[in-house]
Parts: sequence; structure tokens; C-alpha cells
Amino acid sequence: MTTVLNVELGERSYPIHIGAGLLDDSALFASLVKSEQVVVLSNEVVAPLYLDRVRAHFSARRCEVLVLPDGEAHKTLESFGQVMGFMLEKRLERGALLVALGGGVIGDLGGFAAACYQRGIDFLQVPTTLLAQVDSSVGGKTAVNHPLGKNMIGAFHQPIAVIADTDTLSTLPARELHAGLAEVIKYGLIRDLPFFEWLERHIDALLARQPAALAEAVQRSCQNKAEVVAADERETGERATLNLGHTFGHAIETASGYGNWLHGEAVAAGMCMAAQLSARAGWLSAAELERTLALIARAQLPVAPPPDISAATFRELMLHDKKNIGGRIRLVLLQGLGKSCVTRDYDDALLEAVLRREPAA
Amino acid sequence: MTTVLNVELGERSYPIHIGAGLLDDSALFASLVKSEQVVVLSNEVVAPLYLDRVRAHFSARRCEVLVLPDGEAHKTLESFGQVMGFMLEKRLERGALLVALGGGVIGDLGGFAAACYQRGIDFLQVPTTLLAQVDSSVGGKTAVNHPLGKNMIGAFHQPIAVIADTDTLSTLPARELHAGLAEVIKYGLIRDLPFFEWLERHIDALLARQPAALAEAVQRSCQNKAEVVAADERETGERATLNLGHTFGHAIETASGYGNWLHGEAVAAGMCMAAQLSARAGWLSAAELERTLALIARAQLPVAPPPDISAATFRELMLHDKKNIGGRIRLVLLQGLGKSCVTRDYDDALLEAVLRREPAA
Repeated sequence: MTTVLNVELGERSYPIHIGAGLLDDSALFASLVKSEQVVVLSNEVVAPLYLDRVRAHFSARRCEVLVLPDGEAHKTLESFGQVMGFMLEKRLERGALLVALGGGVIGDLGGFAAACYQRGIDFLQVPTTLLAQVDSSVGGKTAVNHPLGKNMIGAFHQPIAVIADTDTLSTLPARELHAGLAEVIKYGLIRDLPFFEWLERHIDALLARQPAALAEAVQRSCQNKAEVVAADERETGERATLNLGHTFGHAIETASGYGNWLHGEAVAAGMCMAAQLSARAGWLSAAELERTLALIARAQLPVAPPPDISAATFRELMLHDKKNIGGRIRLVLLQGLGKSCVTRDYDDALLEAVLRREPAA
Repeated sequence: MTTVLNVELGERSYPIHIGAGLLDDSALFASLVKSEQVVVLSNEVVAPLYLDRVRAHFSARRCEVLVLPDGEAHKTLESFGQVMGFMLEKRLERGALLVALGGGVIGDLGGFAAACYQRGIDFLQVPTTLLAQVDSSVGGKTAVNHPLGKNMIGAFHQPIAVIADTDTLSTLPARELHAGLAEVIKYGLIRDLPFFEWLERHIDALLARQPAALAEAVQRSCQNKAEVVAADERETGERATLNLGHTFGHAIETASGYGNWLHGEAVAAGMCMAAQLSARAGWLSAAELERTLALIARAQLPVAPPPDISAATFRELMLHDKKNIGGRIRLVLLQGLGKSCVTRDYDDALLEAVLRREPAA
């Protein structure tokens, strides 16, 4: 069964196609791709699995392929320059389409390349990881990392469409499946209590990769993301709640070196820290905190940061976060399950206690 | 006397302030700059002349300054990375303002940096060259060069305002003044016959840097640019006529190595080539071609490309141009003085004759 959601952004609206077997849906690709020139960007892990099937849809067009090494360590300005050089060497014109086939790194890097090549060309997201399907492929945030901070160099550039083939999740390494579940759980926590409760009931089915459960998780996640993005494309308000756990998480990723902790793992530990701060502030009950930590743990995800990151290091790195205004760390906190806010209005001593991993009173 | 023009782009509308002495207009800067954090980007030639006067307006704010080497050779992805690193080291937040103080290189590079830093921050254009005041500071095109083509990596990102102090033109090297006049003449050629005729009468006054003549040239140029940009921000139609001479010109710049020919010099020679092709096609009379070449020559600008660029090299480089569709070189041609079109509908043999510098029949 195929689902089509729409991200409502006026002239920049686009569909998200979700379903099993979509990579072989010639009619779908034909309906979306009009350009005579196509460049497919992928990585060394995904390309052997899916590149030929995707490329088959472009046999009647000029199709160039660039395969990069896998991993967050390659989401850099250098890789961006490499993509630009490749596209120029191949003489791709302004009417060309970039297809990002892979996970979040390929999607973010490919989207940024599409945003900047000749001041902007179209791109199509074909996410092959759970994390990319439920989060990074939707919403038009594109970026590369800088040694001083994650996603610090980027652009808002919406794709023309997203094609999420849930069959690709069957080949996903377990660790990446779990990492993707962090972002799935996030939607429940920040704005969708019924989905959180559904996840409590279906987490084992998701871990067992039952197709129907995975498809529903992707759909409900994308539905949440599409609603938030439609309401606040440029993140001046509600969209910032999608960053639950991310300010802590980015600090974990940076301190650990990009690629050692997966993004979803860092976000999972970060969400636990945000939940703990919310609980210390009295906004989340002990039982709600317990349910949050339990679901994240059942998803095989870390519930605490690496012990070697000091509170001072956390603060140093969190101050670099894009969400900051006026030097004070802005955080997404929970006000019960399924409700969240973006705030700087918390007791700094409570944040310090969380950063120091002090036992709760 | 100060003139204020407005670039009408809905939510992205902004004013262009033109006048003598604006760099010292504290009230103007105060009215435009609300950010607590300011980063001024300038170069080694402009900074000693004007940086202190501009920085004085930000004494009550945090103000960081980055001074780059001068010249087109520094409009690169490497310089872009350097600006990003600087801003991250200084912990500039998303609410920061980037002020681009300098010529076209600083404006284009600074604008692109502002477009991408944390996915976009505000920027203010303070152009100090004639070329930047009449062309590159207005319209939101930002970019850096790639060895395979000029302005190939960039974004559309409109400034919050443009402050053009015509007094700065008094310190401009003569060669740069002339280069700026190429873009001024362009507006007359493509869409404003009365302005072309005004330029025929006032070119000597402009070369003598008479302030009233310079101010009028800047105003009438910006008025033309603002109208074109308002009608076609993303260059899907009329805006492409602003590229008169640029496809030839970019090839000259690339073939000569960035920085050996100034952009305006290359555009001047390119406009002469476009006019010659237009004349060969019968769209421009011999007398109109003569007036075009004569005005460009009187502005102390080249009327022909360097002799060592072969027709084959021209074609090779022109095929890389962003304006191409379907492998055929799209050009801006003249249909009389003050009228232009963007077309691929010309006899290729006539283009070849122009590229080979064959004498007109």
C-alpha cells in the first residue's frame, strides 16, 4: 500500500510517497522527473544495493552518478566542493535534477549542493534509511558540518518530492534502524501522545521490522513533520520543537567526533537529558519521565551521554548551537508527554545538574 | 542629495540609499541595523579607507571584522570556508548581521556567506566601487567562482538594504571606474535609450568624476536594476537581459585567469561581441553598432577580447554558462539601442564569425 502525504508550502509544496517497492515504480519516477539531465548522488554502501534500480528509470535521459564514501565524516564543505566540481565537469545545466539516494548525509549534502549549484537546481529525495525517511528528507533543511558545529553551513531548499521505499529498511543495519527510531519517538514526545502510545505497543514489531508497523511509523512521522514544516518553514516558531534532544545531541556528536555516535543515538541521549531537565523543573512527572526513558531504552538506544563529556564541554558546544539567542542556551523541553516548548526560561542550576549527571533528588 | 529607491520584492523588499557622505550617516545605519552582533567583511584595499567610519556606527554592539585579500582570485569556496570558520569561532548567532564593505567580490562572497551561515542570516551591502553600486549589490545574486566557471556556486539572498556612498568613487582606481561604467552602459543598451543618450552626453563628466554626474548614473542604473529584479527575481525571464555581454565576458575572464581582466572590462568586450552578432543578424544597424562601440571606447574600455582566445576556447567556456539550456548557447542580443532579448534563435555561423573576429562584410 502506498501513501501520499503533501507538504503544504504554496509554490514549494511537494508530495511524500511512502510505500513498499516504490524504487521499482517506473510510473512514479516518470511522473516526477521531467529533466533531461539527472545526477544521482549516493554512497558506497547504498549504491551497490539500489543504484541500478533507480538509474533504470533514467535510461532515456543523460544520467551521471557520483558515489561518495559513507558516513557523517564526509558531510563536509570539502565533499560539497567535490559535488560541485563533478557537476561542472559533467556540464550539468540549470535545468538538471539532483537525486539524493541514501541516508541523511547524502540527503543533506545533496540538498545543499542542489541549493547552490548555479544558485539552485531541483532535487529529489530518495531516502533509504529510517532516519532519512522520517526526518531529514522532509522539510528542506540542507547542510554540511563544520569542525566547530553540526549543520552550520546550509540552506533551506525544498525537494520536488520525496520517495520513501519502506522495503529499503529491510537491509538497514540494526544500529541504524534503532537510530532512526529516536526521531520517530521524538514526534510522539513533542506533539503526538497517541503516536507515543502506539509506539509503546509496537516497538517490538518495529524492532522485528514488521513491514506494516514500519510503514505506519514512517507515515505518522512524516505526517507530523509535514504539518510542522507547513506551519513554520523557516523555523521561527513551532518547527524548533523538532529539535528536541538535538542541542544536547549535537554536542555529543561534536565532542565524540562526527560518526562515532550516530545522529539518532546522540538525539536519543539528548532527549533523555531534555526529559530529565523537564522533570527536574516539574513539567514532566516521574512516571512520564520513566515512560520516556523506557521507550528509548526498548528501542536499543542510549539513555545517557558518554561519561567523558564534562558539563563544561557540554556548555561550550551547546553555546554554538544555531538555536541560541543572546548567548543563553535555548532548549526544547517537555510539558508532559506529547507537548513541548522552546524556552530559555529554566533554572540554570537544573541544567547544570543534568549536565553533571547528578542523581535526581 | 540622497535618493532612496526601493526594490519591490514583497516580504523581501529593501531600500537602496544613494548619496554623498552616507558612510557617516549615523541615523541611517541606526535605522537599518537592529542586530546585537555585527560582522564586517572587507578587503585590504577598502578597509584602510572606510572601515573605521563604518565600524563607528556599531560601537554599541558586538562588532567583529574580517579583512580578506583584495581581488577576484579570492572569490572562492576556500574564502567562503574561511568566512564560515571565522563566524563560528566568533560564535556569531543566527540573529547576527553581516555587513559587506567593498566591491563586487566582497558583496558576492559576503552575501553567499550570509545566505549559508546557519542557513541564512541578514546582510547589508555597503558597496564602494562603481560596479558594485550599480550592479552587484542590488538583486540578491550571491556566489563564489569555481575553476570551471564564474559564479557557479551561490544563492539568491536579498540584503536588508544597500548603502551606496557615491563619495567612495573618488578614491576608486581609474581602471575600476571604467570597469563600472561597462555595467552602467549596459542598462542603456538593454532597456533605456534615453539613459544611453544621456551617457553619450555625460561620459566625459563621468570620467572626470563629477559628483552630480556620478550620482545620476548610479541612480538611473539602480532604478533599472530594481525594476528588472522586482519583475523577475529568480531570472526566469527579463532578468536574463542583464547578462548582456556576460556569456562572452565570463569566457574571457575564465580564459584569462580570474583577476587579469576586470569583470567590467570583460563585459565591455563581451557587449561589443553581442552587438556585433546583433548587427550581423540585421537586428542592429551599422550606425547603432558604431554608437555602441564608440561609447564603450570613450569609457576607456576594451572593444574586443584578447586575441589569444580561440573561437574553440570561447565555445568550450560559453557552454558552461548558467544560461544554457539543452547544450545550445543562449545569448542576450540587441534589437536596436535600448531593446534586448534572450535567444538561442540566431545563425550559428554568425556567432562563429564573431568568435573568429572575422571582418564584417
